[in-house]
Amino acid sequence: MAYLNENYLKLQTGYLFPEIARRVREFCEMNPEAAKRLIRCGIGDVTEPLPRAAIEAMKRAAEELGHRETFRGYGPEQGYEFLRSTIAQCDYRARKIDIADDEVFVSDGSKCDCGYILDILGEQNKVAITDPVYPVYVDTNVMAGRTGPVLEDGSYEGIVYLPCTAANNFVPEPPKEHIDLIYLCFPNNPTGAVARREQLAHWVDYARRHDALILFDAAYEAYISDPQIPHSIFEIDGARECAIELRSFSKIGGFTGVRCGFTVMPRALLARTESGKKLPLHPLWHRRWSTKANGVSYPVQRAAEALYSPEGRKQCRALINHYMGNVKVLRDACAKIDMQVFGGENAPYIWVKTPGGLTSWQMFDQLLGEINLVVTPGNGFGAQGEGYFRISAFNSRENAEEIARRLQSLKINS
Amino acid sequence: MAYLNENYLKLQTGYLFPEIARRVREFCEMNPEAAKRLIRCGIGDVTEPLPRAAIEAMKRAAEELGHRETFRGYGPEQGYEFLRSTIAQCDYRARKIDIADDEVFVSDGSKCDCGYILDILGEQNKVAITDPVYPVYVDTNVMAGRTGPVLEDGSYEGIVYLPCTAANNFVPEPPKEHIDLIYLCFPNNPTGAVARREQLAHWVDYARRHDALILFDAAYEAYISDPQIPHSIFEIDGARECAIELRSFSKIGGFTGVRCGFTVMPRALLARTESGKKLPLHPLWHRRWSTKANGVSYPVQRAAEALYSPEGRKQCRALINHYMGNVKVLRDACAKIDMQVFGGENAPYIWVKTPGGLTSWQMFDQLLGEINLVVTPGNGFGAQGEGYFRISAFNSRENAEEIARRLQSLKINS
Repeated sequence: MAYLNENYLKLQTGYLFPEIARRVREFCEMNPEAAKRLIRCGIGDVTEPLPRAAIEAMKRAAEELGHRETFRGYGPEQGYEFLRSTIAQCDYRARKIDIADDEVFVSDGSKCDCGYILDILGEQNKVAITDPVYPVYVDTNVMAGRTGPVLEDGSYEGIVYLPCTAANNFVPEPPKEHIDLIYLCFPNNPTGAVARREQLAHWVDYARRHDALILFDAAYEAYISDPQIPHSIFEIDGARECAIELRSFSKIGGFTGVRCGFTVMPRALLARTESGKKLPLHPLWHRRWSTKANGVSYPVQRAAEALYSPEGRKQCRALINHYMGNVKVLRDACAKIDMQVFGGENAPYIWVKTPGGLTSWQMFDQLLGEINLVVTPGNGFGAQGEGYFRISAFNSRENAEEIARRLQSLKINS
Repeated sequence: MAYLNENYLKLQTGYLFPEIARRVREFCEMNPEAAKRLIRCGIGDVTEPLPRAAIEAMKRAAEELGHRETFRGYGPEQGYEFLRSTIAQCDYRARKIDIADDEVFVSDGSKCDCGYILDILGEQNKVAITDPVYPVYVDTNVMAGRTGPVLEDGSYEGIVYLPCTAANNFVPEPPKEHIDLIYLCFPNNPTGAVARREQLAHWVDYARRHDALILFDAAYEAYISDPQIPHSIFEIDGARECAIELRSFSKIGGFTGVRCGFTVMPRALLARTESGKKLPLHPLWHRRWSTKANGVSYPVQRAAEALYSPEGRKQCRALINHYMGNVKVLRDACAKIDMQVFGGENAPYIWVKTPGGLTSWQMFDQLLGEINLVVTPGNGFGAQGEGYFRISAFNSRENAEEIARRLQSLKINS
C-alpha cells in the first residue's frame, strides 16, 4: 500500500479559521436575529471591488485569447517578462533597490509561495518563526517534516519561537542561537507592527554572521505610511546575500480572489549542501517553476501589470486609504473604551489586549455574543497571542463605523 | 548557512524542451531565411483561440469583481462548488461514474497537480513509470527525493521503468514486482496510445492485489473517439479504491495559458503509515489545499465552468475536431512516405519511428534542417523513446497541410 506523508498527521486539527467558522455557524444557528447583525473582521480578506484598471486589463487579455493572432498558450513558467520587469522597475529599481527582472518570480499568491519555497530547501534547516505568526509558515514546515510533534501549548518541537510582545513592540531581536531559516513579516500579520530600518539591519547582520536565510513577507508593505519604515528587506545593505522577499497583490489591489503574488530571489543568495558546497538558490527556484508549473494565468498577469499604470496606482491608493481610514476608526473606538491597542498605523490590522484578563477565545465569544462582531483570537496565531485579538480593517466604512459604535456598549471588567 | 534540497542536484540539466529551444535558436541564427519557414510541432501547446463561451464567462466574472455586491475575495481553497459539482456531474455522474462533488479538487493545471500530489505521499514509496513518459512525473519524484542518482542512460536509480514499445502497442503490462505508486497516462503523451478497458482492468487488479496507488493522467481524454475506450480510470470497477485521476482543461478548451485542471481523489482511497495504519488520503489532500493555496482565480473557474455549457461543449468539440483533422493529415503524410506511425487515432500526438536507424536527435536535426519542422525527439521522453519522434497536431490546418507537403520531400534512407 502506498505510504502517506506522516508529517501531515502532526498537524493540529483545530486550524484557526475553520474553528472560527464553526463557532460563528453555531452562534448564528442559535441566534438567528443576531446573525443578521453579524460583522466579520476575522479572516483578513478584502471587501472592496477590484480596481477598474485591473478589470479592464483582465477583460482585454481574455479577449486577446479569443483571436488566433493574439492567442497565447503556455507562458513562461516564471512569469511574463512584461510583469517581471514592471515589478522589478516599479517596486525596486525606482526605489533605488537593485533587483533584476529575472530575480522576480510571479506566482498565484504569497500563501502558495510559502509552500513552494520549502521545496528547494533541505530538511535539515533549523527554522525560527515569530510568535504570534501567520499559521501557514508553521504548517508548511510541519508538512515538510522540519518539525517534531506538536506540544501541549500548540507549538511544534524543533521550531524556535521568537516571542513578539508589548515589551519588544512586537519586533523580536535575533536569537542567541544559530538558525538557518527565519520568517519575518513586516508590516506584521497579525500584530500590525512594523520594523524600523535599524531593526531590519540587525536581522540582516545576524543572518550574514550566521549564514542564515531570511524569508521576508512584505504582503502588507503598501500600508506603510511612515516614510522612515522600509518597504522591502532589500533596502538594507547586504540583504541580497541573505534574504528572499514574498509579496502579494492581494492586499494592495484586492486580488485575494484573483490570485497573484511574487517572490524576489536574488542571484547572490547561496545555500549549502550537506558536504558544505555553496550553491546559488536562484537556479533551483527557476527549475522548480520550470518543472512544476506553467506560469500564472495570462489575464491575471495582465491585471497585475495594470495595477502599476497611473490609473491603477491611483485606484490602489484609494483602496488602501479606504482601509486605513477604517483602521483609524477602529483604533479610536478601542482607545475610547480604554482598550490597549497596537498596530494599525502602517498596517490594516489592529492587535488589541483583551481587558480584564480574558483569554482570547473568551473575548472572541463575548464580542460575538454581545456585539455580534467576529474577530480573530490572538492565540490562534501562537502561544504569545494569548490575551490578544486581531481586528481586520478590511471592511466597508459603514461597517467599521458600526463596529466602533457597538464597541462602546461592550461590558468590560477591567 | 541554509541547506538546499540536494535532490535538485540529481536532475539532468538538459531538460528536453530547453534543449529543443536551444537547437532551434541556433539554427534560426545560422539560417535566417529558413527560420521564416519554421513550423513548430515540438511542445504540445495549443494554437487555436479560446472558446467564446469561456472568454465571455471570464469577462463577466472579472466585471463581477468590480462591484461591491458581487465582489469575491478568497474562494474555497479546493475550488468553487459551482465548478466542482459541474465537473462531478458532467464528466462522471452523467457517465454513470460515482464521483461526489467534494472528491473533485480544482487546480491551476495538471502539471502543477503532479507536483502537489507527491506532497501527501511518503518518501518510501516505490515508483513505477512508463517509458517513454511525460518528464514531469519523473522530475517531481527526483525533486521529492524518491530516486537515487541519474544513470548513464538518463534513467534514475530507484524508479521502475515499464517499457512501452511497438511490441506491446505502447501499453505496458503490470510488473511482476511490488510497486506502491504507478503513473499511467491514457491517451498517452507522447505515444498517442490508448488503453482498452481490459488493459486498465488488469492494472486496477494489480493495484488492488498489491495495495498500489495509480496516478491516472487523463489530460487527453477528450480526444478519444473510439466508444470502446474508457475516458476515466473510474470506469473500471474497484478503481475508487486504488486510483487518483488528473484532468486538465488545457487540451480540451485551449486553457494552456488560462491554467485550470482538477484532481479526482476518491474518499475510499487509503494509504498507510510506516507502522501499517491505513488512513484515507482525501483529508490529507483537502488539508494540503487549505494550508497551501487559496483556490484558483475566480474568473478562471468561471471560464472552466463555461466549457460545460451547451455552447461551450460545442466550441470544445469544434476545437478537438480541428486538431483531430490535423492529426489525420499528418498520419497520412507519414504513411505516404512509408514512415511507421503510431497513435493519433484517439490522441493529438503521433509517434513516428525514425527511418534508416537514425537516432531521435539525428532525425530532429534532419527535419529542422531539411524541411524546417520542429518535432520532439522521442528519447527526450525516456530511453525507450530512442528511435522515435513525436509530432503534435496542435497547429493550424494550413500548417498541418504544409508539413504534410514538406514531408514528401524528405530524403529518407530506409
